[in-house]
Amino acid sequence: MRLMNAAHNEVSQQQPLVQCLTNSVVTNITANVLLAAGAQPAMCDTPEESFDFAQVASGVLINAGTPSQQQYAGMREAIRGAREAGTPWVLDPVAAGSLRHRTEFILSILQEKPTAIRGNASEVMAIAGMGAGGHGVESTDEVEAAVPAAKKLAESTGAVVAVSGPRDLIVSDGRVTWLRSGHPMLQSVIGTGCSLGALTAAYLGAARGSYLTSDLGWEINDHTATLAAHAHSGAAAQLAMSGEIGPVPKAPGSFAQAWLDALYLITEAQIEQFIDVEEA
Amino acid sequence: MRLMNAAHNEVSQQQPLVQCLTNSVVTNITANVLLAAGAQPAMCDTPEESFDFAQVASGVLINAGTPSQQQYAGMREAIRGAREAGTPWVLDPVAAGSLRHRTEFILSILQEKPTAIRGNASEVMAIAGMGAGGHGVESTDEVEAAVPAAKKLAESTGAVVAVSGPRDLIVSDGRVTWLRSGHPMLQSVIGTGCSLGALTAAYLGAARGSYLTSDLGWEINDHTATLAAHAHSGAAAQLAMSGEIGPVPKAPGSFAQAWLDALYLITEAQIEQFIDVEEA
Amino acid sequence: MRLMNAAHNEVSQQQPLVQCLTNSVVTNITANVLLAAGAQPAMCDTPEESFDFAQVASGVLINAGTPSQQQYAGMREAIRGAREAGTPWVLDPVAAGSLRHRTEFILSILQEKPTAIRGNASEVMAIAGMGAGGHGVESTDEVEAAVPAAKKLAESTGAVVAVSGPRDLIVSDGRVTWLRSGHPMLQSVIGTGCSLGALTAAYLGAARGSYLTSDLGWEINDHTATLAAHAHSGAAAQLAMSGEIGPVPKAPGSFAQAWLDALYLITEAQIEQFIDVEEA
Repeated sequence: MRLMNAAHNEVSQQQPLVQCLTNSVVTNITANVLLAAGAQPAMCDTPEESFDFAQVASGVLINAGTPSQQQYAGMREAIRGAREAGTPWVLDPVAAGSLRHRTEFILSILQEKPTAIRGNASEVMAIAGMGAGGHGVESTDEVEAAVPAAKKLAESTGAVVAVSGPRDLIVSDGRVTWLRSGHPMLQSVIGTGCSLGALTAAYLGAARGSYLTSDLGWEINDHTATLAAHAHSGAAAQLAMSGEIGPVPKAPGSFAQAWLDALYLITEAQIEQFIDVEEA
Repeated sequence: MRLMNAAHNEVSQQQPLVQCLTNSVVTNITANVLLAAGAQPAMCDTPEESFDFAQVASGVLINAGTPSQQQYAGMREAIRGAREAGTPWVLDPVAAGSLRHRTEFILSILQEKPTAIRGNASEVMAIAGMGAGGHGVESTDEVEAAVPAAKKLAESTGAVVAVSGPRDLIVSDGRVTWLRSGHPMLQSVIGTGCSLGALTAAYLGAARGSYLTSDLGWEINDHTATLAAHAHSGAAAQLAMSGEIGPVPKAPGSFAQAWLDALYLITEAQIEQFIDVEEA
Repeated sequence: MRLMNAAHNEVSQQQPLVQCLTNSVVTNITANVLLAAGAQPAMCDTPEESFDFAQVASGVLINAGTPSQQQYAGMREAIRGAREAGTPWVLDPVAAGSLRHRTEFILSILQEKPTAIRGNASEVMAIAGMGAGGHGVESTDEVEAAVPAAKKLAESTGAVVAVSGPRDLIVSDGRVTWLRSGHPMLQSVIGTGCSLGALTAAYLGAARGSYLTSDLGWEINDHTATLAAHAHSGAAAQLAMSGEIGPVPKAPGSFAQAWLDALYLITEAQIEQFIDVEEA
């Protein structure tokens, strides 16, 4: 918990610049989530600029939600730039398994060593070659069913693999962590999951930077950074629903606003209070 | 009213998957409206994926608001997929009549038998060949003036034609319905009309599915489903402004949030209470 | 102040139609800001439609935030249409100086006589050839440091040059105005600056139209219109934080909503009360 707090603190201190190549539905909320968490968003995704930008960014998000050929080209450039510069990058394999065309693209970039992969159970099982594929963007599988796929994927790619659901599963080589946080209302607001991918890139970027700035920095590895990003997002949902920062939201419109507020207002002590972490 | 209630209920029960090929300005609110109403959004609009997706979707929305050549190609694929699979699809002819290029595109897909057409008076008159065209995206004609155009269009295309305005007009072969609902504040929030097109696709999809799930299902025809979608959206605006679910909004920022909340919270009894339906 | 009030009044009276060619992250908030301020948004940006639309629009915004080749082509068409029809247009040189590709594009359209240029200090210094370039989208320079660049740019292009920051700087040939308004919370919501570019286009369009409609109209020049747009946006942030229109926002989610409300509710007397204008 001490390290998760340190990771949270590094994001506010360093204000990591996160390059998001993401789907057009969630650009706005993704940028606002990053700002609320203290990071800086940049939605730079063209083929012409993505390589250069990934070299100055602290972290890169590749979200395959509305994939055009042009954005695919931008994604390949961003990944190339990220790898050359050692910038951590996160893959969000939206709807992998349910649509052939994007699944092929996602599998092709999976070879490029993402730092972390964040998806739902169906998506993770699909790209691990162990699932039947989801129906659209909703998971049709339980998180628990994705444990073998997450382990296999972590081993084959070297990535931290995060599976979102009622309990989040974070897997990396040799470590399996369960995180209980969040609130079902998150499912009723578009982009809360996609934004978590961006927030993970922010935490990974800040954790890398922490080697230079903090005594604890060298201990905040990618697994811990990914876990801390999920805890921040999930605990903010709980804080939003707690009534502590305003009226308790009864519906998605007011919840979306309260969640953004909570991402900004939440303290490390409140995150600790709301979440439950279990190492398996 | 019993059938409109049944249509509303089917949406929550079936959670129809709605494929939206829509303009970039409103993707976010459209997705949130669908989620609030109990449907599942998927903004799948590329040429590569749109055909396949339209075959698994419950309903498809084609909104011509920010038309790129690539999205046009995606729209043609989605329509082809929808027709092959019998998926209902909704045409929203944004700014038809005022811009030559998109008007030509809209007229070309009008031949493809949309299940419903939703627009303002100027747009409907333009695509029926009976209007001078609007100025940008705002209607310059009264709903009442669009009755002949809506009837002509319903007859020539077989679609349910819905004209939005202070009173909504729903026309299908042999049936003309006036719906009084909504609130002027809806005009001050971008995407409330475009979202209604998506909601109509959700209701049409759920109504089709209701043949399998409900005793009343076979009676919920496309006209009733379209009417029920309009009633849901309009009554939610009235509920938002009523003070029953929170402070009365005085301006568009708080209204937008309250309307989303109301779409989620509204009951069938409340819809009945707020709207006024008249068969002409 | 009398002229700024007149400019504000012209926007509500004329409801200027503003064509926005802007980045995908901020289309939604930009449209909602224009609606809240009484203007009409139209996000028409394709190469096929942009020329025609710029001829009927009251004002045009060119925001280089997420530049695709296709949008570049649309922007060139819109500028051509605007110049042919005498429509005022605003250039927002997002991240100029920090990315070579877009900087070249921005410099190329700078020759096309924008009516106004709105950016942060780093961007304005970069396109004036007097800066080192920013880091992503955040300014790394103080507004005060941009005075010589703004003057040079105003002289070489004939545009009104507006530099956003803790104090806004408005420069045109022979006039330098400082505006104190706004609130730091604006930095925590994506698109508040980009929306200000669109609002400036609305004010410029309404001011041009005012020659026909108002006794004061001929006195509302482009400098005053640009200043009034900045005052409207900044004072709305102060009104939002004042507690006069609802609870004082503590975080960006509730602030974003309150700012939109304030843009709609604010009176000319309130703008006067909140801002401080100094001619240098």
